[in-house]
Amino acid sequence: MEAETFKSLESASLGDTLRLTEALDGLKYNADGLIPVIAQDAGSGEVLMLAWMNRGAIERTLEEGYACYWSRSRASYWRKGESSGHLQKLTAMRFDCDGDAILVKVDQSGPACHTNRPNCFYLEVDGDQVRVISKPR
Amino acid sequence: MEAETFKSLESASLGDTLRLTEALDGLKYNADGLIPVIAQDAGSGEVLMLAWMNRGAIERTLEEGYACYWSRSRASYWRKGESSGHLQKLTAMRFDCDGDAILVKVDQSGPACHTNRPNCFYLEVDGDQVRVISKPR
Repeated sequence: MEAETFKSLESASLGDTLRLTEALDGLKYNADGLIPVIAQDAGSGEVLMLAWMNRGAIERTLEEGYACYWSRSRASYWRKGESSGHLQKLTAMRFDCDGDAILVKVDQSGPACHTNRPNCFYLEVDGDQVRVISKPR
Repeated sequence: MEAETFKSLESASLGDTLRLTEALDGLKYNADGLIPVIAQDAGSGEVLMLAWMNRGAIERTLEEGYACYWSRSRASYWRKGESSGHLQKLTAMRFDCDGDAILVKVDQSGPACHTNRPNCFYLEVDGDQVRVISKPR
């Protein structure tokens, strides 16, 4: 039943709505209860990072208005920027057609990457090489 | 050893390179041999979709210049657009700091979503509702 939630939305019309709780029930969490989340800068459109949320992290993010992920390495909630100050203020949260990915648009304070680069995607393929394309702030 | 590849790049300087094969060896594939891939429109910056690649799909994408994913539902390679014609011409491929996510910038032909919407993220949270924010072309 829940698996059908997103399938049934494929033919929904512009402006149609469903209850948030129903959508959260219908999301396809992986075996660890997690779903991948893309963080995009709301202003520049820059893709900042990819991280993971469980249902609790999604709810915290929406309630508090700042991105809160699930840290797989620490097995705990991870309020992005809680130690660095590089918070991500939420401006929009979107689910995809299959209910197995999330996009958050955020206002990023400071660099998004733990290396102090503006975003995490700083390694670009260039022929048979990979090149570092940004430097820490 | 391979797990150290991306760790050692954290302190690399702008313009530093490593061999692509070494980077592909060092990526953190999940238990199914897959890594999440964000597809972003190279022109508009719009995030189009999230899909998955295994190493073979990464190599095909780079060799052929068009995004080729691994379909988890069909358990086969999935040349995006091979049936719909909605191909994704690769303009850049980037790896993230941890080597566990990929960003591809693409020129998208037609709608990216199988529902014929421009992108897959057409369900936006609005208070205690989720709203359909785009319609099929």
